[in-house]
Amino acid sequence: MPKPTIQVCFSPDLYHLYDDPEQIVVVIDILRATSAICTAIEHGAESVIPVASLEEAQEYKNLGYLVGAERGGKVVEGFDFGNSPYTYMNDRIKGKNLVLTTTNGTRAIETSKNSHTVVIGSFLNIDALIDWLLNQTRNIVLLCSGWKGKFNLEDSLFAGNVVQRLIQVDAFKRTDDAALCTKYLYEMAHNDPFTFLRKSSHGQRLAKLNLKEDIRYCLQVNKTSKIPVLQDGRLVALDVKETLMS
Amino acid sequence: MPKPTIQVCFSPDLYHLYDDPEQIVVVIDILRATSAICTAIEHGAESVIPVASLEEAQEYKNLGYLVGAERGGKVVEGFDFGNSPYTYMNDRIKGKNLVLTTTNGTRAIETSKNSHTVVIGSFLNIDALIDWLLNQTRNIVLLCSGWKGKFNLEDSLFAGNVVQRLIQVDAFKRTDDAALCTKYLYEMAHNDPFTFLRKSSHGQRLAKLNLKEDIRYCLQVNKTSKIPVLQDGRLVALDVKETLMS
Repeated sequence: MPKPTIQVCFSPDLYHLYDDPEQIVVVIDILRATSAICTAIEHGAESVIPVASLEEAQEYKNLGYLVGAERGGKVVEGFDFGNSPYTYMNDRIKGKNLVLTTTNGTRAIETSKNSHTVVIGSFLNIDALIDWLLNQTRNIVLLCSGWKGKFNLEDSLFAGNVVQRLIQVDAFKRTDDAALCTKYLYEMAHNDPFTFLRKSSHGQRLAKLNLKEDIRYCLQVNKTSKIPVLQDGRLVALDVKETLMS
Repeated sequence: MPKPTIQVCFSPDLYHLYDDPEQIVVVIDILRATSAICTAIEHGAESVIPVASLEEAQEYKNLGYLVGAERGGKVVEGFDFGNSPYTYMNDRIKGKNLVLTTTNGTRAIETSKNSHTVVIGSFLNIDALIDWLLNQTRNIVLLCSGWKGKFNLEDSLFAGNVVQRLIQVDAFKRTDDAALCTKYLYEMAHNDPFTFLRKSSHGQRLAKLNLKEDIRYCLQVNKTSKIPVLQDGRLVALDVKETLMS
């Protein structure tokens, strides 16, 4: 059997070049949507419903849901929270179905939702994610959410860490230059990712908003062993055992 | 006056995010379209007419033009040459208006043709290009042609060299993570770009086609001081004096 491939897509605007209903997509939005989603699931949220538009988010809000909404790095007025992971470490989310819309991450989920499996990746769940990916036989695309369609450094850095670990054990075939590029970036930055990302455009944007602590948190590894997976439009904790048996 | 910006666009498929009729676009397709265009102009071609489709190329062929056509790294049957720079070092192109269609480069030119100025960049004309860019006050986008819409290493490497040299003299403001990424790649690879690119997907593709010599040639610097510029649908040698006075 040929080795499955691992590719990196730098933007939802390029996803049409990678689209395949049979593949696994790992959606990455390190600062901060996928970090927030991992945190919410770890802290007891039943599910996170990702929605692309503020209008949809408002409809859920009107129905009584707790709704997170972020645009341009800030909480949108009238909603319960934005995408700071810290706001999801809260008892009031326990057992709840939350709703989330963000500038980039929820758009990436929407873009890739017709692939075989969509899972959520962040440094916070990286070991669990890689353990799971190593047991898969389908092709994998690491989908970086980017910034309004453009390349960003933080998502690429994470993708590079995943690529490096997957090709190290010879489990996957690297097929594209983007994967190689992210691996190089990761090798360059891994000793001090915080300093590396301080120079990035979104790092500077968040620093201006006094969100440096968020950046530090989002770069921590293994705060959770849960992998959010998209099921019927909701992100829920993946039942790893079940997927290994199927 | 604010400093002009320098951004890097990784693919014609992302150009809609960068599109601005007032800016200068440097089209980059190191392996091999923009290297071939620089070589043709240096070796006396009057102009190179870039066309996106094989159908258009065939129409020019029927009219008696010399036509280069490349798809997937190979010369398309029935045309005069592909995009190997070596085939343009030839007396029969002197004074001629050539026509060229390639997998990626001519598409990038087509995509950006409505910007203020489109120039052609390659290692072969890098010093002339940078000298000219340093005298410009408009924003600059370095447009990598990529491979069928996807990111590639060789175009990024060249973009990184340009970014590094332009921001070194404090002439431009870096505005995006893509520019920073290419600068890192260039810093990593510049001691031995040939080895670096051997691992790239297009490097491997060309090696399989016995085109390693083409790669070596395309990585040479300053084989020409001419900068091809798009004027009325044709790439001609830029009159640097005239643009400095205008």
